[in-house]
Amino acid sequence: MEVEIKARIPENFEERLRELNAEFLREVVEEDIYFNHPCRDFASTDEALRIRNDYTLTYKGPKVDKDTKSREEINLKIENIEDAAALLEKLGFRKVATVRKTRRYYSLDSLTICVDNVEKLGRFVEVECIGEYEPCREKVMELAHRLGLKNFERRSYLELVLQTGTA
Amino acid sequence: MEVEIKARIPENFEERLRELNAEFLREVVEEDIYFNHPCRDFASTDEALRIRNDYTLTYKGPKVDKDTKSREEINLKIENIEDAAALLEKLGFRKVATVRKTRRYYSLDSLTICVDNVEKLGRFVEVECIGEYEPCREKVMELAHRLGLKNFERRSYLELVLQTGTA
Repeated sequence: MEVEIKARIPENFEERLRELNAEFLREVVEEDIYFNHPCRDFASTDEALRIRNDYTLTYKGPKVDKDTKSREEINLKIENIEDAAALLEKLGFRKVATVRKTRRYYSLDSLTICVDNVEKLGRFVEVECIGEYEPCREKVMELAHRLGLKNFERRSYLELVLQTGTA
Repeated sequence: MEVEIKARIPENFEERLRELNAEFLREVVEEDIYFNHPCRDFASTDEALRIRNDYTLTYKGPKVDKDTKSREEINLKIENIEDAAALLEKLGFRKVATVRKTRRYYSLDSLTICVDNVEKLGRFVEVECIGEYEPCREKVMELAHRLGLKNFERRSYLELVLQTGTA
């Protein structure tokens, strides 16, 4: 399980992270190609399938609760992005949008914090924990509170990008 | 394109290969898990999707002619077989059969010759060439003739295994 919350980034957020001694890990440019299913509408079933430019194919299952973005996730490392996209398209999957962002990864209390600047959408923060649902959920909520995060955004970047109508 | 013919193996076939100075490359045990599509019947569309135990996910398109097994093929190296199978199953693909064989690879005149001993089916030989259809087809047919191969088998091992009813 991936237990995750997302929110619009508060003022001076990264200063706050440094005060809490969060460890800055790395900054990367992530480009995600999202696909829809040949005979299911992922927007209705709340699933997602994407290829990330770090050579990962990811399936995300439906969200499991009402407030966080927690869901099952299967990640598969692949050797070639073009071949993976061609193979999916042969199977009838259709590209729906590409989401690009600059992501700054931090680590704090064994959780991952992502400070994202998403093309067309702006700046967000995500707090995530991979593991058993209940303990992860507790840790994520506690840290979100300490970080002053509120008004959680449950829509994915893909949904938000599609809603801007510029995908 | 993969241009390929398959036939029941003739008597003393590997001696014949040695006489022709074919180069023995390696012997491997191949285990292929085949999947059917969530909303297409691959048996009807003449496509195939499989995970091989050499960490390859392969899509095969429909055969393009009436005598060989030539078809488009997309191969994608993957890091983890269980994750790949789980991901496909989440997308609605269903395991239909596993095909196991011992395969001895030879090289001759820049073509690949596979001497296969397939569980439940017995011994076959395949001659294959990856590249442009026409020149590959010519090379494959010429070598098949020199090797005394006839009565080509156009059905895949998957089809043959499913026909035995023991998959």
